[in-house]
Amino acid sequence: MKKIRGFYIGRFQPYHYGHQSVIEHIAEEVDEIVIGIGSAQQSHSPENPYTAGERVLMITRALEHSVSLPFYVIPIEDIQRNALWVSHARAISPPFNVVYSSNPLVVRLFNEAGAEVISPEMFIRENYSGTEIRRRMLVGEDWMSLVPPVVADVINEIDGVGRLQDVSGSD
Amino acid sequence: MKKIRGFYIGRFQPYHYGHQSVIEHIAEEVDEIVIGIGSAQQSHSPENPYTAGERVLMITRALEHSVSLPFYVIPIEDIQRNALWVSHARAISPPFNVVYSSNPLVVRLFNEAGAEVISPEMFIRENYSGTEIRRRMLVGEDWMSLVPPVVADVINEIDGVGRLQDVSGSD
Amino acid sequence: MKKIRGFYIGRFQPYHYGHQSVIEHIAEEVDEIVIGIGSAQQSHSPENPYTAGERVLMITRALEHSVSLPFYVIPIEDIQRNALWVSHARAISPPFNVVYSSNPLVVRLFNEAGAEVISPEMFIRENYSGTEIRRRMLVGEDWMSLVPPVVADVINEIDGVGRLQDVSGSD
Amino acid sequence: MKKIRGFYIGRFQPYHYGHQSVIEHIAEEVDEIVIGIGSAQQSHSPENPYTAGERVLMITRALEHSVSLPFYVIPIEDIQRNALWVSHARAISPPFNVVYSSNPLVVRLFNEAGAEVISPEMFIRENYSGTEIRRRMLVGEDWMSLVPPVVADVINEIDGVGRLQDVSGSD
Amino acid sequence: MKKIRGFYIGRFQPYHYGHQSVIEHIAEEVDEIVIGIGSAQQSHSPENPYTAGERVLMITRALEHSVSLPFYVIPIEDIQRNALWVSHARAISPPFNVVYSSNPLVVRLFNEAGAEVISPEMFIRENYSGTEIRRRMLVGEDWMSLVPPVVADVINEIDGVGRLQDVSGSD
Amino acid sequence: MKKIRGFYIGRFQPYHYGHQSVIEHIAEEVDEIVIGIGSAQQSHSPENPYTAGERVLMITRALEHSVSLPFYVIPIEDIQRNALWVSHARAISPPFNVVYSSNPLVVRLFNEAGAEVISPEMFIRENYSGTEIRRRMLVGEDWMSLVPPVVADVINEIDGVGRLQDVSGSD
Repeated sequence: MKKIRGFYIGRFQPYHYGHQSVIEHIAEEVDEIVIGIGSAQQSHSPENPYTAGERVLMITRALEHSVSLPFYVIPIEDIQRNALWVSHARAISPPFNVVYSSNPLVVRLFNEAGAEVISPEMFIRENYSGTEIRRRMLVGEDWMSLVPPVVADVINEIDGVGRLQDVSGSD
Repeated sequence: MKKIRGFYIGRFQPYHYGHQSVIEHIAEEVDEIVIGIGSAQQSHSPENPYTAGERVLMITRALEHSVSLPFYVIPIEDIQRNALWVSHARAISPPFNVVYSSNPLVVRLFNEAGAEVISPEMFIRENYSGTEIRRRMLVGEDWMSLVPPVVADVINEIDGVGRLQDVSGSD
Repeated sequence: MKKIRGFYIGRFQPYHYGHQSVIEHIAEEVDEIVIGIGSAQQSHSPENPYTAGERVLMITRALEHSVSLPFYVIPIEDIQRNALWVSHARAISPPFNVVYSSNPLVVRLFNEAGAEVISPEMFIRENYSGTEIRRRMLVGEDWMSLVPPVVADVINEIDGVGRLQDVSGSD
Repeated sequence: MKKIRGFYIGRFQPYHYGHQSVIEHIAEEVDEIVIGIGSAQQSHSPENPYTAGERVLMITRALEHSVSLPFYVIPIEDIQRNALWVSHARAISPPFNVVYSSNPLVVRLFNEAGAEVISPEMFIRENYSGTEIRRRMLVGEDWMSLVPPVVADVINEIDGVGRLQDVSGSD
Repeated sequence: MKKIRGFYIGRFQPYHYGHQSVIEHIAEEVDEIVIGIGSAQQSHSPENPYTAGERVLMITRALEHSVSLPFYVIPIEDIQRNALWVSHARAISPPFNVVYSSNPLVVRLFNEAGAEVISPEMFIRENYSGTEIRRRMLVGEDWMSLVPPVVADVINEIDGVGRLQDVSGSD
Repeated sequence: MKKIRGFYIGRFQPYHYGHQSVIEHIAEEVDEIVIGIGSAQQSHSPENPYTAGERVLMITRALEHSVSLPFYVIPIEDIQRNALWVSHARAISPPFNVVYSSNPLVVRLFNEAGAEVISPEMFIRENYSGTEIRRRMLVGEDWMSLVPPVVADVINEIDGVGRLQDVSGSD
C-alpha cells in the first residue's frame, strides 16, 4: 500500500504549541509528515530571529517527544516568485500527497497546481502565535509556557531572547 | 527612413482603458511600440495578482482590436538595482528611440542615460487605475467597465478575481 | 472552440531557416504560437552574442513575412534550477497546450510536468545550426544564406558579426 | 554532558555504500550526525540528476536501516561565494562541533573558519562513487549493487535511470 | 608591531559631519580605517539616492582633508541573509581587528561571530543624520551646513538634490 | 579644469608587476585612477584564490610605493549579464572619463556604450601573468620575483600559497 505523506509549512519563529497541535492532528491522517521551514534564509531580524538550523533543532527536539510517525524537517528558502513556489517546495521536499495549510497564498498556489489541500485552522489553539511569543520576549513577559520545554531549552542555549531584543533595537 | 520606435512601461495589473488611451496617443507619434511589462516575475500577490504571461495575453488581445501599428509586448523582470535598470530594459527590448513614461523614477533614470522621454500624463483618463480596479475586485464592485472586454475575458478565464481575493486574505 | 496554442523554445543565436522550418510546420497544427527565447539574460558572449531584444526583433521580422497565425515572442531568463524551469516558462508565457521541442532536457522536464510534448526533429533541415552560423561569422564565410534576409539586416545593423568577433577574442 | 554533533556533506547523486561506510564510522565517534546535501538546488542534469527532496528520501531510508543515532538531513543550496559557504552551512544546519570531509575545498574553508575537521578518506571503499554509478546507469550496467536496496527502490520509483539518460542526451 | 585596523560601516546617504566626527574619533585609536559603504547596490531611491561610486567619492574627498591615517573605502552590497553578513563584509574588506558600530544588528552579528565591537554613539553629534539631510533637500531647506563642503560639491555636480526630488515623486 | 579619471579593471589574482607597469603608464595620462577588482565575489578557487579584501590590500600596498596620484580600489562583483556590466561598473565606481583595457569583451562593451577606450597592451611586460604565478605557486617554483615585495608579504601572511594548493586539490 502506498504511503500517505503530508506537507505542512510554517516559519516557526519559534516553534510553539499551536504548531504542535496541528502536527498531532495531521499525524492521525497520514503515514509520514514533511515539515517545511519557510523563509529559511532569514534570521536575526525582528520577524525572523532564528536561523533555519536552529528551527530544525527546535522542531526535531519537540517532535521526538510528541509524535511517533516518521517526519522530515526541510528548510525552504524564499524563491521570490510566487508562481514558482510550489515547484520549489516540491523539488526540495520528499514527495507528498496532501498539503496542510491555512495560509491563503499557500492554499491558492497549491490549488492552482492541482494539489489536495486541507486547511487545519480548526485545530489551531487561538492563543498561540509566533507574533505573540516574540512580543512577550521583547517586553520580558512569560513566553516559555507557549512552547514545548525542549524548544525553550534551544532558545535559551542560543541566547534567543537576547538576540531578538538586540535585532529589534532601533539604530 | 529610419523607424521611430516608442517604449512604454507599466505593470498592467491589470491592463485597463487608461493604458489603452496612452497607447493610442503614442501610436499617433511612432511607427512601432514596445510595451514593457514591469515586475514580470511577480504574481499571486495583492499588488501583482497576474503572471507576466497572463498580462502578455491581456495586452495583446486588447491591442489587436485597438491599434494598427506593430507592437512588441516584453516581460521585464525587476533587476533590484535602479542604476542598471535602463540597460536592463534596453537589453531585453527591441531598440527604441523615445520613452513614454510619467513615472518619476523611470523618467529620471532614462534622463540620466541621455534618452528622450515624453510624459504622457495628459492623456491618462483619471478614473482608470490598477489600484482602483483591484479594490473593486476585492469588494465585489463593477470593475469590468474599466477594462476592454477581451481583458475581462482573460481575467475571468483564469479566475482572476478569485485569485486576487485569495492572495489578499490574511493568514 | 478552445484555441490550441503551441510553445516552441530556442536560444536563436541567431534565428535561422532551421527554426523557421520548424515554426512553419507547427503553424499547421496550432492556432497560435508562443516562441520562447531561452537564456534571455545572456549576450555579448561567443555562444550568445545577441541580446534578447535583438532576438525578439529578428524573430518578429522573419515571422511577419512567413506565417499568418498570431505569435508571441517571449524572452525567458535562465532560472538555474531545472526543477523550476517549467513553472518559470509557464508563468512568463501566455498559456499553451502543447510543447514542441527536440531538446532532451526540455522534453523530459515537460514530460515530468505532465505536458504534451511533440519532437519536431524531423522537420529540421540538417544544415542549419546556430553553431555553424557563428563559426562562419568568425572566419568570414557566407552565413547570410542560412538566415532570412530580414534577420541578416538586423544583424548587420547592430554590427553583429563584429561583435561576435570581438567577444570571441582571447584576452 | 554536551552532545557531540558531526557534520558530513556530499552531493549524494545518488547516495551509495561509500557514503554509508563513512557515516557508519562517524556514528562511532559522535552523538548525532548532520548530513548536508550539497548543490541542493540542482537536479535533472548529468552530474546532478536527482532533486534535493529525492536525495533526502534516499538518505533517510538508508539510514533508518543502518544507524541508530539521531541524524538530520539538510538540503544546502550553493551560495556561489566560497568565502561565505561555512557561514551558510552553519546557518542552515543544527549546530555542529566537528566536520567530516575529505573534499579539499571544504576542509580548507572550515579550517580557515577555525573548525575541527576530520578527513575520513580512509573509510571510503574505493569502488563506490557517484560518477561510476551514473556511468553504469547511462550504459545499462549493474549499478544497484553499489547502493542500499532502499535507495534503488527510490531511484526506480522516480524513473531515475530514465531521467539520467534523458538529461544526458545531446540536443 | 601588528597594525590595528578598524572597521566602520554606514550607508552614507549622504556622508555628513556626524560620520566625520565618528571617524575622527576612531582615527585616534587605530592605525588604519576600513569604511564599508552598506547597501552599495542601491541608488536612485528616496532612502538611497546616491550610487556606491558617488558615495566613494564623497567619503574620499572628505577624508583627504580631515584624517591623516590610511583608509580604505569599500562598497558592500546587501547579501539579504543576516547570518552571512559578517563573512560577506570580511571577504570584501581588508582584514580588520575591531568593529565600530552603534547599529544593534551589526553589533549583534559581529558579537555572535566573536569580534571586538565598540559602539561610538557617544561621539555622534545629535543633529546630523542622513534622514534629516534628505528631508531638507526635499523641501528646499539648508542642508549644506551638515556636510563637508567637498561633499556638497559632489552632490551638486551630480544634481543630487534634483535626483532625490525626482525619485521621491509619486507616480 | 576638470579632472581626468582613468578606469582600469583586472582580477588581480594576484596583483603583479605586469599590472603595475600598466598602472604606471596610465598614471602619466590621467589625474586619478579607479582600479576595479573584477569577480570580487570569488575566492578560494584555483582561478580566484584571493578574496576581494585581500586583493584590495595587495593593490593598495603596492601603489602606495609606486604611484603618487590619487587612486580608488573598488571591488566589482560579477553581474552575470554582459549587457548590464558597463552600468554596473559605472554605478559602483567614482565617475571616470577613459577606460584602459585590453580585454576584448570589456573593450567591446565600453565601445558599445560610447566610452573612450585605450588598450594598453603595449605596456604589458610579457612575462607577467596571474596564470603563470599561480602555476608556479602550485608546483613550488619562484613566484615572488613576479610581484612587488609588499604583495608577497600579504600573500604569505594569509598563507596564500597553501590556500591555492589546497583549493586546487582534487576531491
